[in-house]
Amino acid sequence: MIAIVFVSCDQDQNVVQNANPEIFPKGEIINMSSFVGTAWLTRLVSADSMNFNSVGSVTFETGARTDWHYHPAGQIILVLGGVGYYQEKDSKKRILRKGDAIKCPPDVPHWHGASADEEFVQIAITGRKNGPTVWLDRVSDEEYGSEDIE
Amino acid sequence: MIAIVFVSCDQDQNVVQNANPEIFPKGEIINMSSFVGTAWLTRLVSADSMNFNSVGSVTFETGARTDWHYHPAGQIILVLGGVGYYQEKDSKKRILRKGDAIKCPPDVPHWHGASADEEFVQIAITGRKNGPTVWLDRVSDEEYGSEDIE
Repeated sequence: MIAIVFVSCDQDQNVVQNANPEIFPKGEIINMSSFVGTAWLTRLVSADSMNFNSVGSVTFETGARTDWHYHPAGQIILVLGGVGYYQEKDSKKRILRKGDAIKCPPDVPHWHGASADEEFVQIAITGRKNGPTVWLDRVSDEEYGSEDIE
Repeated sequence: MIAIVFVSCDQDQNVVQNANPEIFPKGEIINMSSFVGTAWLTRLVSADSMNFNSVGSVTFETGARTDWHYHPAGQIILVLGGVGYYQEKDSKKRILRKGDAIKCPPDVPHWHGASADEEFVQIAITGRKNGPTVWLDRVSDEEYGSEDIE
């Protein structure tokens, strides 16, 4: 009598897909009317009189996004995980993925957020020297869902 | 009677300990005499006339560190992985870990690098408005190895 038994634990099936690299805490839900859907913020660094940058980690759930807005001193976005969208006024929508870096010039209207299919985790480095963020119109469903991608 | 049993279930033993979350490429080796040991840099964002921040991802191998230096417009450090050291002049050495954020004021001498036991991965956000980094003395072995920790 010969018994041959192969047992292979397929641990990969237990790995949960997670766009968040779990470096910074997810933080608190952002309660602002200028966001659609749910997003979370961890404040990492506050602006002060010697360094006007504020830095935060933002997690957008799938489909969540900002309204159109601009920063009087510009913004840098570093993508930590997931898939997101970024669009500047009069430009096509861009798809952002882990490792991408965006530099948005001062006063240029733009919006960003998660893709329709996956959450999105980003670091935002925002210059506060020339005043607070200026919020504009809501991103329309047509703009959000546009397949005209750069 | 012959029983042959193959059990393969210890996949965890194949997981390499890696301080790098593999978000940004490790980049190129930094060839500067103001570093001790091996460090790698990926430039993510360059300073320009509208946004004076430069952003880069730096990986220090175990034991690698900068010399003492200061930034005329300050620096922000975000820790992505591993264990590092950070020290400002006349302050104790600090141990940095994933998720930590440091704001170093303009003109304050400091050094940073990997710990003696583990590599260190950081984002550096450096203001370039008031001139380039000013390099000072080498970090002594006594300073690097000090157990007088904040």
